[in-house]
Amino acid sequence: MRELGEFALIERINSGRVQAPGVLLGPGDDAALVAAPDGRFVVTTDMLIQDRHFRLDWSGPRDIGRKAIAQNAADVVAMGAVPTAFVVAFGCPADTPLELVDALTDGMWAEARRAGGSIAGGDVVRSPQLVISVTAFGDLDGRAPITRAGARVGDTVAVVGRLGWSAAGLAVLTAGFDPADEFSAEALAAHRVPQPPYSAVLAVVADSAAGVDNPGVSPAEGVLGSERVGVSDQHAVEFGVEGIIGSATEVPAIPTALTDISDGLLADLGHIAEASGVAIDIHLKTLRDPALATIAQRLDADAAQWILTGGEDHAFAGTWPAHRELPPGWVPIGRVLAGHGVTVDGARHPGSGGWESFSGVDSASEPEPR
Amino acid sequence: MRELGEFALIERINSGRVQAPGVLLGPGDDAALVAAPDGRFVVTTDMLIQDRHFRLDWSGPRDIGRKAIAQNAADVVAMGAVPTAFVVAFGCPADTPLELVDALTDGMWAEARRAGGSIAGGDVVRSPQLVISVTAFGDLDGRAPITRAGARVGDTVAVVGRLGWSAAGLAVLTAGFDPADEFSAEALAAHRVPQPPYSAVLAVVADSAAGVDNPGVSPAEGVLGSERVGVSDQHAVEFGVEGIIGSATEVPAIPTALTDISDGLLADLGHIAEASGVAIDIHLKTLRDPALATIAQRLDADAAQWILTGGEDHAFAGTWPAHRELPPGWVPIGRVLAGHGVTVDGARHPGSGGWESFSGVDSASEPEPR
Repeated sequence: MRELGEFALIERINSGRVQAPGVLLGPGDDAALVAAPDGRFVVTTDMLIQDRHFRLDWSGPRDIGRKAIAQNAADVVAMGAVPTAFVVAFGCPADTPLELVDALTDGMWAEARRAGGSIAGGDVVRSPQLVISVTAFGDLDGRAPITRAGARVGDTVAVVGRLGWSAAGLAVLTAGFDPADEFSAEALAAHRVPQPPYSAVLAVVADSAAGVDNPGVSPAEGVLGSERVGVSDQHAVEFGVEGIIGSATEVPAIPTALTDISDGLLADLGHIAEASGVAIDIHLKTLRDPALATIAQRLDADAAQWILTGGEDHAFAGTWPAHRELPPGWVPIGRVLAGHGVTVDGARHPGSGGWESFSGVDSASEPEPR
Repeated sequence: MRELGEFALIERINSGRVQAPGVLLGPGDDAALVAAPDGRFVVTTDMLIQDRHFRLDWSGPRDIGRKAIAQNAADVVAMGAVPTAFVVAFGCPADTPLELVDALTDGMWAEARRAGGSIAGGDVVRSPQLVISVTAFGDLDGRAPITRAGARVGDTVAVVGRLGWSAAGLAVLTAGFDPADEFSAEALAAHRVPQPPYSAVLAVVADSAAGVDNPGVSPAEGVLGSERVGVSDQHAVEFGVEGIIGSATEVPAIPTALTDISDGLLADLGHIAEASGVAIDIHLKTLRDPALATIAQRLDADAAQWILTGGEDHAFAGTWPAHRELPPGWVPIGRVLAGHGVTVDGARHPGSGGWESFSGVDSASEPEPR
């Protein structure tokens, strides 16, 4: 890479890429230009450090690229927004093999496409270890953002997507992988590349937009109108949700509060409870996962602990108006109550911490803090 | 910092901060929400690595924070856009003193304010060394972006802001600082904190927006209309440009191409020449700087080399329609010609490289590549 130089490397990274319709001006100038059809944009950023958030001997560069994009796209979707674009700042040693950069970049593009956007620009610098900093953008199409602060007493708590599988994969890596065990392979894959169920949220919000007017919000009209339609159509096709959108007979429910599970179920529900000024109680039996229990038994571990406190699966948790049918894929797991804090079957869960950057263990390195 | 933990640290960083009007939802949820009044936003990202882009024994954390924001804000302004918001991903060792983080954050906020925006969100992670990744946003207020691709044969090449001072500061640091020399102190300050002349660009583009209609562009109207006016007014007051805006008697010229000087004057003009399919010739005598020459003489260095190839000053270079008066502060330095490449008084300049991430020397460390 030293021979190639920064500008040639950037050209290589961007060669042959096709930008999403919302990227009006891609890489190559002082800055990119991205469409924000409703006059606002959702933005989130996450940094991944080698040997802290990933290990090259545990994950391939393509998987690391996908994970970096996925965890940011999940944050965008957790606001009820449709991902539109990403920018990536990337640091690596001068002797990094070009093949590694190619695979990493390919992984990023693949996940960006899966989420519905493209990579509009970035920065490449020299660094002692790999550092990946992704910033992700989304469009609300005139809707209000779904924050963590809207949960109301009586709401149903529900999740969509797998819980505890990334933690199980980490345990498998730490204990030594048994190739004969199919569930372990699945856990490993879940740890390497989370698969946030973007469509299970986006179908719901698209559905709500189709069923109601939003008189208080005035999206941009005119030059960008066609891109807006393009984005929605693209998602409908990509995620196979045309049928759901077309079949709405009443205005469907949307979550009153929503988040993605990045720090662990209890920790992230704790964020909703705190932001909304409510308590949340969840029922452990609704979260049982026989396959995960099989892995846990082999490793003498506790599957419930993985499910309740394991982060990085990037499932979604939301609170929903009571007495309304949940959309496909969403599983009810508890109830919003008056008070504060999160309980499991009415009791505090021991060691309900979850991921914090400056305490506890690394998600992708030895269990000992360094 | 280890004791404080991630969430308390984030709370500390954001405590007491007042967001710019364009930040509709700040830190604390899965993502932030930022206004994009004209239905598009300009975005750029830069990553700074400790001992590669800055050294803690050469720059204080407040200066480093200012520099990180300034170099991104300069990229936004170099598109002709008004900075609106920033997000910052930040990595640091667990034993980093809280005072360092406080000073770094204060510096970021100070420069974000100077540029006209605020810090809408971010991420804090553990890392072996300091890593700062800034993403900056800007609004074009209905105007076309000013890219590097618009230069036309016959245009005047002009710059605004100082050139070579950051390189001189680096030379002073390497050679050993002489506190008796006032120019050296100035060069040192220029290296530690670039001061991009945002207003010299923003006054021009605001002026052009006041003087012409943009029939091909339809900015968002409605809920966000008041913020648009607010941003312009705020800038007019902050930069003292009301007089300039008010006194326009004819539609003023705007640059046909524009960039900020981050890689070095010759390298960055080379980007314009290549993107526009033209050649550029500059006249060395227009760039003479007696104070810089004084420093160079003392260090037995070449001031012209600093001016032509020193990066990181974040001055602006633009090409302008010929036979039109340049706005205040802009200095004509050359001419756009048919052909390709950049020449100095008609000849190729030896060693006209400029900054590249994987070749040459570090901007803030020993001259030897590592």
